[in-house]
Amino acid sequence: MEQKSFFRFLLLFVTAAFVFVFTTTNFSHEPPSTAALFDCSDASSSSPICASRNFLFKKQHRPNTKNGPTTNPTRRRDHVSDVPRHPLDPLTVGEINRVKSLLSTHALFSSRAPHALHSVVLEEPDKNLVKKWEKGDPLPPRKASVIARVGVDYHVLIVDLSSGRVEEVEGPGRGSGFPTMTLEEMNDATWAPFSSADFNRTIVSRGVDLSDVACLPLSSGWFGKSEENRRVMKVQCYSSQGTANFYMRPIEGLTVLLDLDTMEVIEISDTGRVIPVPGSTNTDYRYARASNPEETRLLNPISIEQPRGPSFVIEDGHLVRWANWEFHLKPDPRAGVVISRARVRDPETRELREVMYKGFVSELFVPYMDPTDAWYFKTYMDAGEYGFGLQAMPLVPLNDCPRNAEYMDGVFTAADGTPYVRENMVCVFESYAGDIAWRHSESPITGLPIREVRPKVTLVVRMAASVANYDYIIDWEFQTDGLIRAKVGLSGILMVKGTAYENKNQVKEQEELHGTLLSENVIGVIHDHFVTFHLDLDVDGSNNSFVKVNLKKEETSPGESPRKSYLKAVRNVAKTEKDGQIKLKLYDPSEFHVINAGKTTRVGNPTGYKVVPSGTAASLLDHDDPPQKRGGFTNNQIWVTPYNKSEQWAGGLFTYQSKGEDTLAVWSDRDRDIENKDIVVWYTLGFHHIPCQEDFPIMPTVSSSFDLKPVNFFERNPILRVAPNFEQDLPVCRSDAIPG
Amino acid sequence: MEQKSFFRFLLLFVTAAFVFVFTTTNFSHEPPSTAALFDCSDASSSSPICASRNFLFKKQHRPNTKNGPTTNPTRRRDHVSDVPRHPLDPLTVGEINRVKSLLSTHALFSSRAPHALHSVVLEEPDKNLVKKWEKGDPLPPRKASVIARVGVDYHVLIVDLSSGRVEEVEGPGRGSGFPTMTLEEMNDATWAPFSSADFNRTIVSRGVDLSDVACLPLSSGWFGKSEENRRVMKVQCYSSQGTANFYMRPIEGLTVLLDLDTMEVIEISDTGRVIPVPGSTNTDYRYARASNPEETRLLNPISIEQPRGPSFVIEDGHLVRWANWEFHLKPDPRAGVVISRARVRDPETRELREVMYKGFVSELFVPYMDPTDAWYFKTYMDAGEYGFGLQAMPLVPLNDCPRNAEYMDGVFTAADGTPYVRENMVCVFESYAGDIAWRHSESPITGLPIREVRPKVTLVVRMAASVANYDYIIDWEFQTDGLIRAKVGLSGILMVKGTAYENKNQVKEQEELHGTLLSENVIGVIHDHFVTFHLDLDVDGSNNSFVKVNLKKEETSPGESPRKSYLKAVRNVAKTEKDGQIKLKLYDPSEFHVINAGKTTRVGNPTGYKVVPSGTAASLLDHDDPPQKRGGFTNNQIWVTPYNKSEQWAGGLFTYQSKGEDTLAVWSDRDRDIENKDIVVWYTLGFHHIPCQEDFPIMPTVSSSFDLKPVNFFERNPILRVAPNFEQDLPVCRSDAIPG
Repeated sequence: MEQKSFFRFLLLFVTAAFVFVFTTTNFSHEPPSTAALFDCSDASSSSPICASRNFLFKKQHRPNTKNGPTTNPTRRRDHVSDVPRHPLDPLTVGEINRVKSLLSTHALFSSRAPHALHSVVLEEPDKNLVKKWEKGDPLPPRKASVIARVGVDYHVLIVDLSSGRVEEVEGPGRGSGFPTMTLEEMNDATWAPFSSADFNRTIVSRGVDLSDVACLPLSSGWFGKSEENRRVMKVQCYSSQGTANFYMRPIEGLTVLLDLDTMEVIEISDTGRVIPVPGSTNTDYRYARASNPEETRLLNPISIEQPRGPSFVIEDGHLVRWANWEFHLKPDPRAGVVISRARVRDPETRELREVMYKGFVSELFVPYMDPTDAWYFKTYMDAGEYGFGLQAMPLVPLNDCPRNAEYMDGVFTAADGTPYVRENMVCVFESYAGDIAWRHSESPITGLPIREVRPKVTLVVRMAASVANYDYIIDWEFQTDGLIRAKVGLSGILMVKGTAYENKNQVKEQEELHGTLLSENVIGVIHDHFVTFHLDLDVDGSNNSFVKVNLKKEETSPGESPRKSYLKAVRNVAKTEKDGQIKLKLYDPSEFHVINAGKTTRVGNPTGYKVVPSGTAASLLDHDDPPQKRGGFTNNQIWVTPYNKSEQWAGGLFTYQSKGEDTLAVWSDRDRDIENKDIVVWYTLGFHHIPCQEDFPIMPTVSSSFDLKPVNFFERNPILRVAPNFEQDLPVCRSDAIPG
Repeated sequence: MEQKSFFRFLLLFVTAAFVFVFTTTNFSHEPPSTAALFDCSDASSSSPICASRNFLFKKQHRPNTKNGPTTNPTRRRDHVSDVPRHPLDPLTVGEINRVKSLLSTHALFSSRAPHALHSVVLEEPDKNLVKKWEKGDPLPPRKASVIARVGVDYHVLIVDLSSGRVEEVEGPGRGSGFPTMTLEEMNDATWAPFSSADFNRTIVSRGVDLSDVACLPLSSGWFGKSEENRRVMKVQCYSSQGTANFYMRPIEGLTVLLDLDTMEVIEISDTGRVIPVPGSTNTDYRYARASNPEETRLLNPISIEQPRGPSFVIEDGHLVRWANWEFHLKPDPRAGVVISRARVRDPETRELREVMYKGFVSELFVPYMDPTDAWYFKTYMDAGEYGFGLQAMPLVPLNDCPRNAEYMDGVFTAADGTPYVRENMVCVFESYAGDIAWRHSESPITGLPIREVRPKVTLVVRMAASVANYDYIIDWEFQTDGLIRAKVGLSGILMVKGTAYENKNQVKEQEELHGTLLSENVIGVIHDHFVTFHLDLDVDGSNNSFVKVNLKKEETSPGESPRKSYLKAVRNVAKTEKDGQIKLKLYDPSEFHVINAGKTTRVGNPTGYKVVPSGTAASLLDHDDPPQKRGGFTNNQIWVTPYNKSEQWAGGLFTYQSKGEDTLAVWSDRDRDIENKDIVVWYTLGFHHIPCQEDFPIMPTVSSSFDLKPVNFFERNPILRVAPNFEQDLPVCRSDAIPG
């Protein structure tokens, strides 16, 4: 060994030793055991997962819970005695335990190869069985659908809960996409980099205390051959020193590539050493950290009050009945919430009429717009990669949902098969914003003293998923006039990029930022959000057609009219899937009807519902770009496919590192018949996000929505006969607060 | 005279005599005097206008007001002692009386030619005077702007209220567009057809009782030479027999062309005799007519409650202060409501910062899509032709606005110069729908037990205009995060077309309907609604620029990145008006910023607000079509003009029968400089409406909106420090109603 090499080796050794000593003495870096119960709804939870990264609370006071909002005023339920009462009820604690017990004796899991359950959910009975079922009937056979990992292989199993039979329906598969990560893996991955001396060294060399480091498990997407046949993940880290909002303090340009099966560090990319870690000033958003809480009262208290209680019931835990609506509601680890069998009562016939068999968020796609090393791969699919439901944390009463809300827990399964409860994951409440359902006044010209107005009250089903930094608020809002609104709110925290710039006047080419300078050394990177909904509409039954009602300019013939032009509505019934691939066009507009050609109104219009877009954004990425191939389901705003039980997830069943071979775009290109068939409509709601300083350090909610709206479904306005508000029905309220 | 001619004459004479006798005996057809006070807010109003067409109440019982919602629980104010306290305060009763008195001695009105005041409003002081003014300062000179008709000439006058000087600033004009109709004219026009024996005869021949006829004053648009130099109107009529909803019972194809100055019948077009008048079944929407009101209770009572009262004050009658906002609010006979001097308090500096000098609905354009004789001309401009504020009827407490609302009256001027009060024309209230202002939860992966959520409370300013059949709900919604949302709701009643068809299966060519068969003999005709907002943004001062921030796909170079493409934001500062003419494009998207280049944030971003469109529709009519020339302001979704005091009304000051020579489109084509100037942004919110059966007999509200949103205006999220909800602050409520 040459002298130069020797010194180089010595330096490396000393550094490594230093880091080792530093790490083991200053900081306990033992990853926690992956406990089965992940319920961290309570700040004092003793769950090891909840406590695992409590760096902040080691050094700082806990938030003043006495002054904090009351969380979980409701009962804590262990759900051990739950039994399923509806064919679509999610697996109960007892059923999950039975799955665990059945699988524990199964040959597949007898090897010593590491194994984990990535998904354990109800295998829904066939539609026709569910539709035939009536309350009081015995339930169709209860089955669980399981995605299991054994070694590096994946298996899709159906577990029959009564017979105990375990059937392998797919697998062993490997390489072409992987299942949703388990929470345990995500947790372990954030610890894995600390096993690398190189990693620890670079952290220290940047002046960051290892005990302040908080890391995030980032799905790596798929960008070519190199990642094939190997499950990988990228980890990036932040400094949590001085703030709970570590997201605003990126350790820029440091990316650790992990083998997700072994948690080994494959590669470290360390390109950002010259970039300072942004400061913590003004980044903490916790109320308990506010300097003078009394100054923060902009408004007098306000509340939605229903002194006679809510008008809805949640029957048997999952069946919601409200006004003229009835639907089944369940939490789901991947989709978040699933609305099933939504039916509305016809005011004339009093019968419940089918509208939507199943509606849920099928996938999200969040590409960032920075092609550089530490950023290009950020093209997340939050449902298929992270589990949109797994990331839905307990809602905060009085703040996430109003006081009149009721809550529903999720019952999910840990990687080892143990059931756990995610409390208050969904809320249901009636909303009244002071809006108007319908109105008409007569002007003095007609002399009729008419002032008829009906207030608008809706039923909201809400969940909020925190996929690392971002928070998605998903609302399903039901209106008494038959309309269903699906609304997506975006809040939470930006994923930001560190930079040496402290002021825009230092920047020569604005565009090189790939975003906006939000604060000193902090860039908010441009990105998109796409939320793709699976909408299995069954309007008055399964056999439906998709009709594009196109508004076309028609020129009049000479002499025909003083008008030169007008619009006419041209109806085009979609024959095959390609007719159902829709890009919205402001200057070539259409309505999008799902009709039942076999059922007409009294005057002969087919009954229908229409999909009504509102503000949205389209994906503009190159269709051959690997992320866009994987997110091909965003190539159109609307797609229509024939119902196929296996086509639930727009990015494919195995989304993680998928290559885009099993997406909605691929299915739709088969161009199957969709006329007068059981069809599924897919709608993608998009957002372009060019961050601005108001998004720092936490973003005011931005939201958009789309509607499913009756179109010649009812004979007439279904709320023609509802009553207005009367003073004597309204509550009598007083304030208990000390007047301030 | 030949024998044949004699018999023809005899027949005509006998018919005319019959009609005369029939009319005078069965029905008093004396038009009412056009009383000055139009306040019909109270069903028992004794105003002759209110009582004038009370056919229904002659024959039927009044609505059961005992069971009806409580209207006007608040004080009735005569406003006689009001004095102006702010430079932008509308003219008071006293000031209008002074205008009347000054004009009554003016030479212009000394002739015996018929005269009328079409508009009497405050002549707003120059912007710089208003901006300089502070509370306590004397008001700038108070002036009235008057549009007067003398004979067939129109005059624009400025009346100085202190000096008493009357200055003619424009006129006498004639022929190229006329002012907004007076309510008196609209009223007289609905009576004018009855002076025609031909009209009465055809009514009777259709089997309609003359006492059941209700007519509407329809602006006739402009379609060529024949109407020049003459103010004309078209009147169409309905049968109110058996329903208050006469709109659903059109006497189809009967159009009376009137001279609006003389009220003479010019021409009657009578093409629809074979078309039956549709029936009245299921058309009445009044609660008092519901068969069994008790069956109509879908929901338990619900209310927005603020036991410690609202958080806003309306100072001196018009200055609204709420949370971090302050703005001036006034009713206007043409625009409806005007928001002025909207300023928001910076949470850091505590200073009030300018956002919008003036915002209001400048014009509406509602073209129907049927080129046939009785329909082609229906291309309404509701502000310039009818007066959007004149048509805004009193709001119904508890139903149009929630219980916690406060109301503002309008003080307007009758044609003879007499002031009158439109009670409860505007309401202001805080809204809480259970939504979330911002939130973030941490997932168990990071181990931080964070659940921070802030509820979203907004301030809503609302008016509702009933322009004949249609109801427009206009909301200006202020958010504590600095966002202003302008929201338009459409409700009320369709303008429908009679048809011989009773079922769609009788229709060969669906498109010949020009709409949808809604009920037997009733077609809902396709139409558009465009609402054009004048938005005089002054972001941190008058000198602003308009920046199009275009998101463009960028392809990476080979080897640059595993990504093939990404989006970059390209900023284009608009130099002249043509750069500010914007058509929205889903696949070539931009953000639209109004920035103050002279003021930057700490890190160097120019402060700004952006216009954020949501769902909208574009006008697709031929640009050379006369209605589209008149409605040329809808040729783009966004326009930007340099501030010009005279450019307030997008369809021109004189919109009635205008030829499109004085529209926003014409002004903008001058292509003036707009960079770093006092600029005005115009946004048009559009709706295509293909009616459906649910719109019959009264439409559930459809709404859309756009936002004005801070973009690098604040250093950071301005509501970072606001408090969450706490249980102990919320009201304690009970129900006084008898439990049901």
